[in-house]
Amino acid sequence: MTEHAVVLVSGGMDSATAAAEAASRDYDLHFLHTSYGQETAGKEYECARDLADHYDARFFHAETDHLARIGGSSLVGDGTVEDADSAGGGENDDTTEDGDAVPSTYVPFRNANLLSMAVSYAEANDCSAVFIGAHTGDFQGYPDCRPAFFDAFQTVVDEGTAQETTISIEAPFASGSKTAIVERGLELDVPFEKTWSCYRSEEPACGTCDACVYRLRAFEEAAATDPIEYAE
Amino acid sequence: MTEHAVVLVSGGMDSATAAAEAASRDYDLHFLHTSYGQETAGKEYECARDLADHYDARFFHAETDHLARIGGSSLVGDGTVEDADSAGGGENDDTTEDGDAVPSTYVPFRNANLLSMAVSYAEANDCSAVFIGAHTGDFQGYPDCRPAFFDAFQTVVDEGTAQETTISIEAPFASGSKTAIVERGLELDVPFEKTWSCYRSEEPACGTCDACVYRLRAFEEAAATDPIEYAE
Repeated sequence: MTEHAVVLVSGGMDSATAAAEAASRDYDLHFLHTSYGQETAGKEYECARDLADHYDARFFHAETDHLARIGGSSLVGDGTVEDADSAGGGENDDTTEDGDAVPSTYVPFRNANLLSMAVSYAEANDCSAVFIGAHTGDFQGYPDCRPAFFDAFQTVVDEGTAQETTISIEAPFASGSKTAIVERGLELDVPFEKTWSCYRSEEPACGTCDACVYRLRAFEEAAATDPIEYAE
Repeated sequence: MTEHAVVLVSGGMDSATAAAEAASRDYDLHFLHTSYGQETAGKEYECARDLADHYDARFFHAETDHLARIGGSSLVGDGTVEDADSAGGGENDDTTEDGDAVPSTYVPFRNANLLSMAVSYAEANDCSAVFIGAHTGDFQGYPDCRPAFFDAFQTVVDEGTAQETTISIEAPFASGSKTAIVERGLELDVPFEKTWSCYRSEEPACGTCDACVYRLRAFEEAAATDPIEYAE
């Protein structure tokens, strides 16, 4: 019997590669895309839909307003997204134990919200795995992207779902770099032209925000060309 | 400096007593009430607002559609809520390791969704605790009401929030009975007339669904009178 997996698909290159990873393990795919008030919601939704078509995945679109209204991030609400070279200096920034700045684009505890939605969906729809493309490579300051967070969340899933339910949290890139994701994505023929990473503009990508800079650097380090269009 | 606490307030007697517990510990209160498609959303919202006035709490109302649309429960969507005497026999019911039935009113992994929202709010608003009134006394089949679940969630919070953030998950009734909640609530002068538990009708309470039966039994065992009105 084919196993089913939920993939948290933002529409970005990391989650697209997570989807490819799940497909390579022969899961039937269910994409869960969440609009939570991020600035680029329209473009991300479009990419997530295109990726669902590409991977022949069922598509579930969750809309929730609480993350935007809670505040605490420049990705949602009225914050201004900074250029990468000023990251770490924003007024919302904090410093973690090992000195990494939590970027102002950090949405507090976002991945716990997204994983909880995905696990609810998985339990109701007999899916045995939840894939998330998060990684710590570039955004060391995001505490909910670290392997220790995903390990802890697995325990919550084991304790908080019905006894006969087994749902595995799969964060295949958690310990890796964005460059490694590009390399893995190229191996798996991920349609990177259907993905979106820019935090700021709708189209073309700005090329200067954190997300663009890290994406472009990852492609460069992988000796590959990013197929999407950038401003200037 | 006064510490702040988020209380997950559904409008029911358990969460009202959790609010009273937090108030008794001298926290400034922030109520987080979530509409997720439950049948009684209007009445619950009204009670939650009344309780916020009573406890002089800030009020945050989150609306999310995903739990209703994911399905898997008779509390949301088009399911029919059963009478208490037929509980355990519904088609959505499952059996846990220790033989307790998971009632068909179980919303998969609901408390993880609610706690994640509350922790996001807490981190963005410098609250140091999150209170939840869940307990295993009557609904032994709800896996996300057990002490082991809350302990595991505490670890997720510690791992998934910024290093300098300390947010304590407080589930003061997790190991107790509903009768113990009534007794504690009476000690703390909880305005039980401003709370709502019935799964089914808008007003008066049906008196026959799981939630009504357990509530009435708890008041009876505490030798107290439930001040709300019941049908017939």
